[in-house]
Amino acid sequence: MSSPEVLVHLHQKAVLLLQDDANKIEKLIEVQMENLATRKCPLYEEVLDTQMYGFSREVDFAVRAGLIEESAGKAIISKLERNLAQLYEALDQKSQLL
Amino acid sequence: MSSPEVLVHLHQKAVLLLQDDANKIEKLIEVQMENLATRKCPLYEEVLDTQMYGFSREVDFAVRAGLIEESAGKAIISKLERNLAQLYEALDQKSQLL
Repeated sequence: MSSPEVLVHLHQKAVLLLQDDANKIEKLIEVQMENLATRKCPLYEEVLDTQMYGFSREVDFAVRAGLIEESAGKAIISKLERNLAQLYEALDQKSQLL
Repeated sequence: MSSPEVLVHLHQKAVLLLQDDANKIEKLIEVQMENLATRKCPLYEEVLDTQMYGFSREVDFAVRAGLIEESAGKAIISKLERNLAQLYEALDQKSQLL
């Protein structure tokens, strides 16, 4: 492979890996959303926060290592944060109803 | 730059970034070691654990992205874990003396 091809390959691989990890957190959020009817589990939120922290460190590293653009990194984190905020809002509303 | 040069550059950059982050945790461990005489701060351990987790996610990503060898990643983590274990041992001995 030529120099630009190697770079494109590494960048694409990095984006796919990060997207894969983001999807796992997305799935955790979805599962918790579906389980709103059942009792709230504080440990679940703890797990989600920890996963988000770990993921943000991965993204930060990928940006610093020059594998992805800073804007792309911010976009992928923002999307997850919005979904997480929706989950917490739904949890709040539920606890107010009780 | 030719294709191998680009790769070597990216690998070196990744290793330097990880070493830099490892040094920050190392510094946190040293500071706590020096402060053994003062009162134990549980939050400090919490911070160290969180930093270790975040760092292990960075290393894991770097390995998966093909930036560093798995063995190099394991070595850098093991070194930190040994130092952390020494700190906890020293903290334990101190609390037994009180």
